[in-house]
Amino acid sequence: MLDWESIFATRSSRMRASEIRELLKLLDRPDIISFAGGIPDPALFPDAEFKTAYADIFSGPSVGAALQYSVSEGYLPLREWLVGEMAKIGIPCEAENILITSGSQQALDYLGKLFLSPNDTALVTWPTYLGALQAFNAYEPNYDQLTPGGNRTPAAYQETAAKAGGRVKFAYLSADFSNPTGETVTRTQREALIDMADEMDIAIIEDGAYQSLRFNGDAIPPILALEIARKGTINETRTIYSGSFSKTLAPGLRVGFVVAAMPVIRKLVLMKQAADLHSSTINQMAICHVAERGFDRQVDKIRSVYSQRRDAMLKALETHMPDGVSWTRPEGGMFVWLTLPVGMEGAALLAKSLVTAKVAFVPGKAFFADGSGANTLRVSFSCANETMIEEGISRLANLIRGEILAKVA
Amino acid sequence: MLDWESIFATRSSRMRASEIRELLKLLDRPDIISFAGGIPDPALFPDAEFKTAYADIFSGPSVGAALQYSVSEGYLPLREWLVGEMAKIGIPCEAENILITSGSQQALDYLGKLFLSPNDTALVTWPTYLGALQAFNAYEPNYDQLTPGGNRTPAAYQETAAKAGGRVKFAYLSADFSNPTGETVTRTQREALIDMADEMDIAIIEDGAYQSLRFNGDAIPPILALEIARKGTINETRTIYSGSFSKTLAPGLRVGFVVAAMPVIRKLVLMKQAADLHSSTINQMAICHVAERGFDRQVDKIRSVYSQRRDAMLKALETHMPDGVSWTRPEGGMFVWLTLPVGMEGAALLAKSLVTAKVAFVPGKAFFADGSGANTLRVSFSCANETMIEEGISRLANLIRGEILAKVA
Repeated sequence: MLDWESIFATRSSRMRASEIRELLKLLDRPDIISFAGGIPDPALFPDAEFKTAYADIFSGPSVGAALQYSVSEGYLPLREWLVGEMAKIGIPCEAENILITSGSQQALDYLGKLFLSPNDTALVTWPTYLGALQAFNAYEPNYDQLTPGGNRTPAAYQETAAKAGGRVKFAYLSADFSNPTGETVTRTQREALIDMADEMDIAIIEDGAYQSLRFNGDAIPPILALEIARKGTINETRTIYSGSFSKTLAPGLRVGFVVAAMPVIRKLVLMKQAADLHSSTINQMAICHVAERGFDRQVDKIRSVYSQRRDAMLKALETHMPDGVSWTRPEGGMFVWLTLPVGMEGAALLAKSLVTAKVAFVPGKAFFADGSGANTLRVSFSCANETMIEEGISRLANLIRGEILAKVA
Repeated sequence: MLDWESIFATRSSRMRASEIRELLKLLDRPDIISFAGGIPDPALFPDAEFKTAYADIFSGPSVGAALQYSVSEGYLPLREWLVGEMAKIGIPCEAENILITSGSQQALDYLGKLFLSPNDTALVTWPTYLGALQAFNAYEPNYDQLTPGGNRTPAAYQETAAKAGGRVKFAYLSADFSNPTGETVTRTQREALIDMADEMDIAIIEDGAYQSLRFNGDAIPPILALEIARKGTINETRTIYSGSFSKTLAPGLRVGFVVAAMPVIRKLVLMKQAADLHSSTINQMAICHVAERGFDRQVDKIRSVYSQRRDAMLKALETHMPDGVSWTRPEGGMFVWLTLPVGMEGAALLAKSLVTAKVAFVPGKAFFADGSGANTLRVSFSCANETMIEEGISRLANLIRGEILAKVA
């Protein structure tokens, strides 16, 4: 038998199983209250609207086109609809500035592929979206810690990157209600990040997957919008915005998008052509159909439900969590991020929790590029109703209280 | 403005626009008879069956699952259906040996990513599928010429690869009715290729995109089938088989698959998880629905129509082409491959043809990893009816005859 490991590319050693994906399997166990998944509540999917969309496609004149190969850039009416949406959040652009991808996960993979040669450096927050680390890992980068508004100088970043054998290529972050922390980057931090990127002459990758899921507070313009305001046109900017329909309409169709300056989009189109030709034609049409007829209504529905669940989770945390545990207070998204007393281990806690408290969550360590953050964990409120949230957080808090007491004793 | 070229990864210099994709734009000009596209005839798509499939999904209990995230491996019932199909062509395997991809193009991208470090060598035929070269190019390999059954020794290949700074990782080929030549690799050649791969300890990537489109002649077992017959089980083989529903059911859903030993599939699953999470859930369900209810009937329909078009094209070539032009006689697929007298240029001929003969085809040079083959061209019979084929080949033959005479004069 072939010794496969001996002929795999060097990058394959960085492809490892995801803790989160393994945990998803727990969702099916009825005795477990799960805050582990980062997935939308299927009860909120616009089923009826999608049913109509597919039926209309098959009854209309475009059925042949829907089933056929199509252009790598993506379905033009969908890109045109996105032009309108982007304008609403301060991002004036043309259809030529947009590439449709197979979910925004694919955008992250392609951007890693476009920028990263082995030993280049990607700046990411500690913690960051685990899927971004997994996507970038295939291109064998180093990571350095991005602290929006922090005091590391461009020169310091550049020196570290040069020592590691490459250069800084981009800063990746989710500015709104990020996965895993739920936190939002302030406007001042966004502006400072543009300054820093200008000085270092690097790209910014802005992950907008949760951008439209704001429950309260004032919207902050996307980093790309702030940069366009400075530079006059998207084609002069260095910020690459990725977005998704997975959290608003449905993830199962695998439709996301990238918005950026034309030199970037042109290269990504060639990359997509070589990598999978194009995203599903019929699904792009279906997404366009549903989005054109009621995107805002659908987003309002999701916000309303998730907002109540966020409230329930924050209230339950306030009520039940012992001293020594802190957590974020997100203004949107799907996640709350807990920090346990130093010395406690999220992974060990999960192992106990599944047996005793019967509550699932994601230990935070996997979200840290440097393997730190052992005393953190992520809970999602998107798929649990308010009763489950109160019950699950109460049980989890009791377990944590017991652990803290055992440590003290 | 950022000097993008200066921060793109080194691999990006090998991402260039595809001649074929640019040519696809010509298909819409009504005065041109096009043999250029390598796409299926949309008139043969099983529209009604897909309409029913999507309607059934939305009326059934799985609508939530259809719109939700799903496992990276792919939809289990579809993988189980494929297990049955593979058994019919001599490839006994389990669902665990199958990964669903977003078209077989994605399988080629992932296999390049899995095996190729920069300067490794991929063996490909001269000519080969252009999309394979494009997919592999992102991983910066060298190419060497694969001649199934030819007399290059493993030692010679290995020496050339070592000089180029890497090692031979795999041999890629399409064994049945390949794109672009339409030719089939004989059983003896397939067996010789397994011998060679065993000796070199490399993988074989067998592109089965056209495998089921045989019109006449006896089917030859896939290379993977021949290797399983030798080694007893798929998990001991080195052949990785990629397949597609794009030529049989419809390309617009982007559903393909890889069949291989479990160590390969396990690694590809991790890669897919990091790169795009999974292929569209709803489309995998729709493909499964249509395949389970009438895959063979659909394939029979396509074979019957394409077979008549192949006959018409071979007849027209026989009738009209001048001496000095030769062509393949495929037993299936979509393509015939023409070789013009040495010194004639397919690209120059196309430029003239679009103006005078008003016939489109693909110049062959792009299919050669070494840039040779200037005097070759590919014509596809999949999307033209018999009248168009007779007329188009007649016009093309007249143009070629004129060119040959002009050269002699």
